[in-house]
Amino acid sequence: MGMLIFSGTGNPDLAAGIAERLNEGMGERELLQFPDGELHVELLDSVRCCDVYIVQSLSPPADRHLLEMLLLADASRRAGAASLTAVIPYLAYARQDRRARGREPVAARLVAELIEAAGFNRVVAVDVHSRAIEGFFGIPLEHLTAVPALAEAIRSNASTDSVIVAPDLGATKLAEHYAKLLGCPVVIVRKARLSGEAVAVSGVVGDVAGRSPIIVDDMISTGATIEAAVRALLEAGCNSEITVVTTHALLVGPAVERLRRLPLSRLVAADTVPLPEEMPLPLERVSVAELLAEAIRRLHRRQSLHTLIARD
Amino acid sequence: MGMLIFSGTGNPDLAAGIAERLNEGMGERELLQFPDGELHVELLDSVRCCDVYIVQSLSPPADRHLLEMLLLADASRRAGAASLTAVIPYLAYARQDRRARGREPVAARLVAELIEAAGFNRVVAVDVHSRAIEGFFGIPLEHLTAVPALAEAIRSNASTDSVIVAPDLGATKLAEHYAKLLGCPVVIVRKARLSGEAVAVSGVVGDVAGRSPIIVDDMISTGATIEAAVRALLEAGCNSEITVVTTHALLVGPAVERLRRLPLSRLVAADTVPLPEEMPLPLERVSVAELLAEAIRRLHRRQSLHTLIARD
Amino acid sequence: MGMLIFSGTGNPDLAAGIAERLNEGMGERELLQFPDGELHVELLDSVRCCDVYIVQSLSPPADRHLLEMLLLADASRRAGAASLTAVIPYLAYARQDRRARGREPVAARLVAELIEAAGFNRVVAVDVHSRAIEGFFGIPLEHLTAVPALAEAIRSNASTDSVIVAPDLGATKLAEHYAKLLGCPVVIVRKARLSGEAVAVSGVVGDVAGRSPIIVDDMISTGATIEAAVRALLEAGCNSEITVVTTHALLVGPAVERLRRLPLSRLVAADTVPLPEEMPLPLERVSVAELLAEAIRRLHRRQSLHTLIARD
Amino acid sequence: MGMLIFSGTGNPDLAAGIAERLNEGMGERELLQFPDGELHVELLDSVRCCDVYIVQSLSPPADRHLLEMLLLADASRRAGAASLTAVIPYLAYARQDRRARGREPVAARLVAELIEAAGFNRVVAVDVHSRAIEGFFGIPLEHLTAVPALAEAIRSNASTDSVIVAPDLGATKLAEHYAKLLGCPVVIVRKARLSGEAVAVSGVVGDVAGRSPIIVDDMISTGATIEAAVRALLEAGCNSEITVVTTHALLVGPAVERLRRLPLSRLVAADTVPLPEEMPLPLERVSVAELLAEAIRRLHRRQSLHTLIARD
Amino acid sequence: MGMLIFSGTGNPDLAAGIAERLNEGMGERELLQFPDGELHVELLDSVRCCDVYIVQSLSPPADRHLLEMLLLADASRRAGAASLTAVIPYLAYARQDRRARGREPVAARLVAELIEAAGFNRVVAVDVHSRAIEGFFGIPLEHLTAVPALAEAIRSNASTDSVIVAPDLGATKLAEHYAKLLGCPVVIVRKARLSGEAVAVSGVVGDVAGRSPIIVDDMISTGATIEAAVRALLEAGCNSEITVVTTHALLVGPAVERLRRLPLSRLVAADTVPLPEEMPLPLERVSVAELLAEAIRRLHRRQSLHTLIARD
Amino acid sequence: MGMLIFSGTGNPDLAAGIAERLNEGMGERELLQFPDGELHVELLDSVRCCDVYIVQSLSPPADRHLLEMLLLADASRRAGAASLTAVIPYLAYARQDRRARGREPVAARLVAELIEAAGFNRVVAVDVHSRAIEGFFGIPLEHLTAVPALAEAIRSNASTDSVIVAPDLGATKLAEHYAKLLGCPVVIVRKARLSGEAVAVSGVVGDVAGRSPIIVDDMISTGATIEAAVRALLEAGCNSEITVVTTHALLVGPAVERLRRLPLSRLVAADTVPLPEEMPLPLERVSVAELLAEAIRRLHRRQSLHTLIARD
Repeated sequence: MGMLIFSGTGNPDLAAGIAERLNEGMGERELLQFPDGELHVELLDSVRCCDVYIVQSLSPPADRHLLEMLLLADASRRAGAASLTAVIPYLAYARQDRRARGREPVAARLVAELIEAAGFNRVVAVDVHSRAIEGFFGIPLEHLTAVPALAEAIRSNASTDSVIVAPDLGATKLAEHYAKLLGCPVVIVRKARLSGEAVAVSGVVGDVAGRSPIIVDDMISTGATIEAAVRALLEAGCNSEITVVTTHALLVGPAVERLRRLPLSRLVAADTVPLPEEMPLPLERVSVAELLAEAIRRLHRRQSLHTLIARD
Repeated sequence: MGMLIFSGTGNPDLAAGIAERLNEGMGERELLQFPDGELHVELLDSVRCCDVYIVQSLSPPADRHLLEMLLLADASRRAGAASLTAVIPYLAYARQDRRARGREPVAARLVAELIEAAGFNRVVAVDVHSRAIEGFFGIPLEHLTAVPALAEAIRSNASTDSVIVAPDLGATKLAEHYAKLLGCPVVIVRKARLSGEAVAVSGVVGDVAGRSPIIVDDMISTGATIEAAVRALLEAGCNSEITVVTTHALLVGPAVERLRRLPLSRLVAADTVPLPEEMPLPLERVSVAELLAEAIRRLHRRQSLHTLIARD
Repeated sequence: MGMLIFSGTGNPDLAAGIAERLNEGMGERELLQFPDGELHVELLDSVRCCDVYIVQSLSPPADRHLLEMLLLADASRRAGAASLTAVIPYLAYARQDRRARGREPVAARLVAELIEAAGFNRVVAVDVHSRAIEGFFGIPLEHLTAVPALAEAIRSNASTDSVIVAPDLGATKLAEHYAKLLGCPVVIVRKARLSGEAVAVSGVVGDVAGRSPIIVDDMISTGATIEAAVRALLEAGCNSEITVVTTHALLVGPAVERLRRLPLSRLVAADTVPLPEEMPLPLERVSVAELLAEAIRRLHRRQSLHTLIARD
Repeated sequence: MGMLIFSGTGNPDLAAGIAERLNEGMGERELLQFPDGELHVELLDSVRCCDVYIVQSLSPPADRHLLEMLLLADASRRAGAASLTAVIPYLAYARQDRRARGREPVAARLVAELIEAAGFNRVVAVDVHSRAIEGFFGIPLEHLTAVPALAEAIRSNASTDSVIVAPDLGATKLAEHYAKLLGCPVVIVRKARLSGEAVAVSGVVGDVAGRSPIIVDDMISTGATIEAAVRALLEAGCNSEITVVTTHALLVGPAVERLRRLPLSRLVAADTVPLPEEMPLPLERVSVAELLAEAIRRLHRRQSLHTLIARD
Repeated sequence: MGMLIFSGTGNPDLAAGIAERLNEGMGERELLQFPDGELHVELLDSVRCCDVYIVQSLSPPADRHLLEMLLLADASRRAGAASLTAVIPYLAYARQDRRARGREPVAARLVAELIEAAGFNRVVAVDVHSRAIEGFFGIPLEHLTAVPALAEAIRSNASTDSVIVAPDLGATKLAEHYAKLLGCPVVIVRKARLSGEAVAVSGVVGDVAGRSPIIVDDMISTGATIEAAVRALLEAGCNSEITVVTTHALLVGPAVERLRRLPLSRLVAADTVPLPEEMPLPLERVSVAELLAEAIRRLHRRQSLHTLIARD
Repeated sequence: MGMLIFSGTGNPDLAAGIAERLNEGMGERELLQFPDGELHVELLDSVRCCDVYIVQSLSPPADRHLLEMLLLADASRRAGAASLTAVIPYLAYARQDRRARGREPVAARLVAELIEAAGFNRVVAVDVHSRAIEGFFGIPLEHLTAVPALAEAIRSNASTDSVIVAPDLGATKLAEHYAKLLGCPVVIVRKARLSGEAVAVSGVVGDVAGRSPIIVDDMISTGATIEAAVRALLEAGCNSEITVVTTHALLVGPAVERLRRLPLSRLVAADTVPLPEEMPLPLERVSVAELLAEAIRRLHRRQSLHTLIARD
């Protein structure tokens, strides 16, 4: 059965990189915005009985990129595609996975339902913020991870005095994953703070004095968490070789400005979301193109994805 | 059973007007955008066992306003709302109701499915571009019309030498509706043009020489259709009293500029979509607030909406 | 994967013609009516893992033919068919695509839902009355058109003095399709008439004096529309060479009598619905068997249907 | 909440009787057939937030009456009915409840799915042929029985020498129900016959010599089963007082002729299906109008239907 | 496409027998119970794009075996299985196919819905208690029968003086199936008994005096029915050569004790449910492994199952 | 509208307590197990148009208790219940909320789907292991918490030298909830341990020397986690006043034995699951009957549950 890869506008460079690694051309499609802002989609290649892979990062603006992806799916389905796979390097709304304060939506579940309603048969995503998101989908979610590739990229930084730092409790499992790959201990920065005077734990849990921290997180949004972590680590006496590594470098709002002010030795990120063209930061990119290409290749050859999947 | 009205950001003034006419306060909600562009919704009023009406115009940017509406629905549903009604003064994507050229989505159907997937029980909309959209929904669509109110607003213009003008074939039924209310004849401007020399009909179908045209359309987007109609009517010798009336004044792109250049006596539109604050146009607004308030009132009192509904 | 074609009783001759062109025998089935009128269906050929095509015209009586088709689908599905395609040369109920007057069903949507409920994966239909019907189906609808074949059949009639006539506004797009293929101008007969004295447009829009009209419509039911159009054209001074061409010649009620009384040179129709055996009319048939066979052939070979599809 | 009763054309007299007993007028509706046989439905009364009961016997022609009922449901649902109950005095297709011979549909399940697809919330039916049909519906089926009323009607016939006769094995449970109510023994006529010489049981199981048989069945279609039973009973020496009682007197094909030839003392049936106006048979009718009215009354008053329900 | 067979713990020996006959290894899986009783499932073989067959008898405890099967299905589906077939040698809850007494569930329908909810595409089952169960499933149910194999096993017992005995009315169709295969007459034992003195039929319907009874039933649960039948047959003067044959030998509660006390010559059963290891009964097993293997083989080769299917 | 409370066998004492607090009798139902282990359910009270609350703890054996609950739902739904609420004091399978190791099911999602398939409209649960479970349900999940009541019960233990102890990372949010209510600091015991020598953090994060630990967890299964935490705290020099508090005291396997061996001052648990009658442990129970009764009361009075809901 044939394979066709279409790309939305969420991260076209990555999509092109994936197609190239698969020795496939990109499926031709027209994707334009009418003057009133309505999106319009047309597929120029026949998808009749093909396995269609729609590569779309839900990078900002997530709502537009989401709708684009759903429209591409509807077009593919009505044109006779045999199966539809959403390849989502960055899945937005994953942090809204519970009703934390009250009468909120479970936005991540809603997004999952919209994706299913549009006719997708399967989702491939990378380092989704919450592992439980898998259960929000009725269709299979192949949860890939860029952590091994990112760990490889910073292996040279990982000396005997390095520590992997989870900048908040939620990143602990991720930190343990890096730690296992790099053979380093884990340190946790506790962000949450009880009101009142009684606080038993210091901000930094574990010994960082004189050590080189490697701060890991699944995503960097405004950079506030990283900034706070760096300040806490410095206060705790870490040495000056500070590395930050993440999968999704959204870098919105004051992020670039914030990160530039920090004394970072390296800042490493995957390419799941596009970067502003003029990024005045020494950001090193690790591409997930091969990871996603390999996943598509195996899906298409009906092989196991087992070794590419995130676990805890 | 209680009633609660929430508004998205698609047209908050209209929503406020509706609530006021119903002597109801607006339901309190927090609706913000995170720095990365993700929307976040929280309802501050209890909706437990209430009939919830979410007023949201799908004005540009339609994708964002659509997702906002779906998130409000999910929050309401999970918080125990008894029923969910989407009150959509302007329903975007209604023109994408068929696969006109090839491997396109049927975007209007997709939007309908997303609305159903979010848990809405009913939709109330005004002058939807295509009447068949009703069949795209599995849930009931109450299709209201602003035409009687708009016709009333221009009745003073409708003298014995007036003609109602459909600026293209698709507007003919609408023109006949206005004509019936105002007692004027209908004239059609044919936009479609066959390639080649053979064209049997002139641009303007019907007699407009020396007459005052009242051009009607369901929506004005970039103004191109209106502009072409005005030029054709002038060529055909209409007199200088030209009126334009529409339900949805999107006025995107070059629309304001275009309309300003035209010799219009009056430009009348409903308030289904918000206007730019600085609109350098003598646009007269006819509010649909009472129409929508009356529809909600009857729905809530379990009365027939029959007299408010668009027919052909 | 194997292919099997079953036929209902809606148009068995056409089904046989399709199967013949595909070099496939018809799937054997027993289809009988019990004395109390209940239909009973049994498939005599194995459909295990075959692509099953059920050819059924929803010709009158549409309700019986519809149920027959649904029963054939249920039998196929339970017997292990790999996929189910409804091949519907004439799709009834397509005119009931909106609630025109009040508390009516959207019958076309209901029919679509029943077809989906029975397990069909795809529908192939010919010249459906309303293009928006596509959006009534959640499954893909391949909307084929007999217009090119019909246009070919009347090409000899299309001289320089011919005009294509849309007998009402709803047929304008269709007339433009014929006009494009035959290089003729389009004339419109306006059926709708405003009450009161004020009517700006005459019955016939465009110049027909001394010209040979080719009246086109998607279907002829009782013939009233055609009769009115012919009378209007004659009054407008058309010459005596009048051609009528249509896809679906239902010819119910007084149709045959009416058409016989009209001074028609030619009456051309496709064979999507069966004709009464004794049809005292010089009706020329253009078969859609090859069109439908080609569609099935391409579906089965996983090729694009693009060139067979109706557009506007 | 209001109540509205609409009737299809399957048994309008019964529907009127039900409405009368409920002191409700019938909901006004227009139900016509277009010249091409398409059904068209319009509700003239507002159903907004009413509990709608659609009374429709699936008497022959079942396919037409089924579609009528589905169209009435769609119209009601879209017009805002609060709930939809199908009141089906005779449920056709109930005998097609299994794939008895091979690649058949399970037609009864298909009918159930169509009823659910049209939006019904509940079904009320009388003496459905197979009790398992209940499990074919996802929505509740209230399975009423006319047996107590019918038993009452023939109580005068039930003397000490009477026997209740099940004319085939399938009617045994029904016969036991009558027997319990009338205090008579049960006799079974075995219709099924093994090929070959070895048959251990005679046609009539139980002692009928000199006794008055009361033959009971849920339905009489062509009358063949009754005819065979009568002949077997006469051969077995029953006396000449033969009573036949049934719920659904379809009496199709040769049924009237057959029954007229038999020496029956009484022929008693409910009025779940209409009878031909000229029925040259001394058929006594027992109306189920009160049974169905009582069921609707209790449903509407939110009371238990327990005592009206068929059990075994 | 590859095939993989997984087994639950409902009848692992039978599953192994099936796999062996197919020359397939069993799919490796881990299936354990946590200390709190929660089941945990993990598939160790890749199922990516394989047709997965899950062999699980719903032998007691049925609830646990049902949930096991659903968990195996969910794991397979999420791991990318191309299709899921439930192979259920014994389908529990099939007797709860109606609301016999009042406000009961239709448990068999519920079980069908749970099986569908877990993502199965098809069910293969053996001698299900009620044929109508097929209509409880929306997915195809291949209803196999062990009767031919069981009949073969007792053919040596079937002499000219043998009679097939249905131990209650519900088993009559089954008895006729055996009778047809073995050329014996059928005798029925009527279990149901009317209260009061009036009983027209004796306990045994048909002549058994001096004959050798072969009692057949689809299942033996506590053995009460068999015990009552044997006693009735002995009273009616049958000879001492009594055979009992059944598909599902559940033998729960007092069954083994009861059967041991009866003067049975042979007791023959299929192996659809496991037997207690120490079964102090001369029970002869007839394996359905080949029947189920053949069904899977044909499903996998896309061949008709027609000859393996139960009919009536 | 009436209210009816039915109880499964998962925790009948708690159900009785809830009903008592609501001044409602328990709905009468028969719930028995057939000799072959099949469950059978019958409701003896009419549920017609009542709001039905089914109280069922998914305590071990969870599979049986789950099926019981689903059968009660099916019976209620078919008997005409207006709405169905599952009140689940302990929701099993919540820890299986992701595919942690490989080809596993997402069991918690499967359970959610089964609950929805049975027709429930809403779920009320207490201290579910993972907050994201809410997103596994399409229906609203009211997530109540027993923490305030449990905190109240141990307030006397909470002196200035107390610390709240999370026995593993996953319990940190819970610990912070207790800490906020009791004004104590939080200490974390890290269970996860990296292989190899490099471990930067000690087992106990925070200062416990000389302090009184209050160990909190959502559930105690085998007691292993608690045992390890106590040992680590003692090693870290905590004082001898050790309190353990939990919502769900499953206490399976070696739990009772383990806990008895530990030097605990107090062991406090809610009564969401029943305890073995002979529990040789000084376990103090805090009943959630009032919490659940209050939730039902508010649901029935259409009031907000806001203040009863768990948040983070």
